[in-house]
Amino acid sequence: MSSSEHATERKVVFEEKMKHLEEKLQQMGSLVEDSIARCIEALKNQDLELAQEVITADDLIDDLEQEIEEKCLEVIATQQPMAKDLRRVATLFKMVNDLERMGDYATSIAKITLRIADEPLIKPLVDIPRMAVLSQKMVKHSLDAYVREDVDLAVAVGRDDDEVDKLFGQIFRELLTIMMENPKTITQATHLLFVGRWLERISDHATNIAEEVIFLATGVKRNLND
Amino acid sequence: MSSSEHATERKVVFEEKMKHLEEKLQQMGSLVEDSIARCIEALKNQDLELAQEVITADDLIDDLEQEIEEKCLEVIATQQPMAKDLRRVATLFKMVNDLERMGDYATSIAKITLRIADEPLIKPLVDIPRMAVLSQKMVKHSLDAYVREDVDLAVAVGRDDDEVDKLFGQIFRELLTIMMENPKTITQATHLLFVGRWLERISDHATNIAEEVIFLATGVKRNLND
Repeated sequence: MSSSEHATERKVVFEEKMKHLEEKLQQMGSLVEDSIARCIEALKNQDLELAQEVITADDLIDDLEQEIEEKCLEVIATQQPMAKDLRRVATLFKMVNDLERMGDYATSIAKITLRIADEPLIKPLVDIPRMAVLSQKMVKHSLDAYVREDVDLAVAVGRDDDEVDKLFGQIFRELLTIMMENPKTITQATHLLFVGRWLERISDHATNIAEEVIFLATGVKRNLND
Repeated sequence: MSSSEHATERKVVFEEKMKHLEEKLQQMGSLVEDSIARCIEALKNQDLELAQEVITADDLIDDLEQEIEEKCLEVIATQQPMAKDLRRVATLFKMVNDLERMGDYATSIAKITLRIADEPLIKPLVDIPRMAVLSQKMVKHSLDAYVREDVDLAVAVGRDDDEVDKLFGQIFRELLTIMMENPKTITQATHLLFVGRWLERISDHATNIAEEVIFLATGVKRNLND
């Protein structure tokens, strides 16, 4: 084989390995989306069994992070990708870290559900589930943006993040009012405030991913989160 | 030169580059430690100027993260380290991400100081500064543990994390009591609760680093944070 044939073959093998890594990434993303949906479902319905499932499922997310990281290092060691290809692997390596953190936040929310299970909810939850739906969408879109190197979609993730921040502001003010009117609600309201914060952090991590995608595609750092 | 001489020369160059990277890492770690100390100093003394300085300094931390990441990729591309050496670079690459997040949390605390500046503190802060001192120590120790591959020191970081969690539990209960006794304190107490949470998260990130160090040194994943 000529050296250019070698290079072509090497690129084909690299792209195959990347495709496999991206599939694993999507699998991890789906697990995280599920955890976000389920931890809020559990909170809304005070479903302790479901909350426990979310906590248990976090091990799968952690295992996948570990597996994908190992595979990234293996691709770097065996394929020695350069320039843009190396950056693609490095970006994916960073993204799984963001996904793992999101899984941790979903677990924190599930633990709150277990802690406040002994009394009925102080209010029907409306904005918190809205935040969760938006966060889930952001997770999905940020990963799709990576796979397709779609800058527009990444920018849209940043816009959804603004929406999540607004919803959290609303929740914050509402819960403060409820606490002031009835101090008996303080313990639970404080826990619900943390739920809002964790969802906000989940969406921040999706925004981090979107920013990484924009950097990968354009070489320019852009701050979507201000 | 023989091929073994080539390999030796390559290793010497690699170690020089790692030394340079580790110096940058320590520099970034010092900035983060400063930000943690200063954001709590600002909160305690309601010093708005200092709070603003912490927010401004976060750009330096972000720039350093970016610079170190670029240099890690450059070392991988030009030195093509294998096995343990590749893992050393990958670990450092992950660690700067943890440090950057800590900087973000210090910034969030500084922003809270700005928000609650219009009224005196509802209580003198004792446990929050204690948490901050411990977190700072954890940051320093986790980076030292990396540079020296010191597993014992990494394990000690995990023990400090337990201490931080206990302090946060104390703060949580104390602030809930204050809020229930006097609903006028609710807004500020809620903000102080978040300060406690952000410090707890900072120490979680230091613990992540410690876990990475243990994995690098022993090849075994160990959970220091339960």
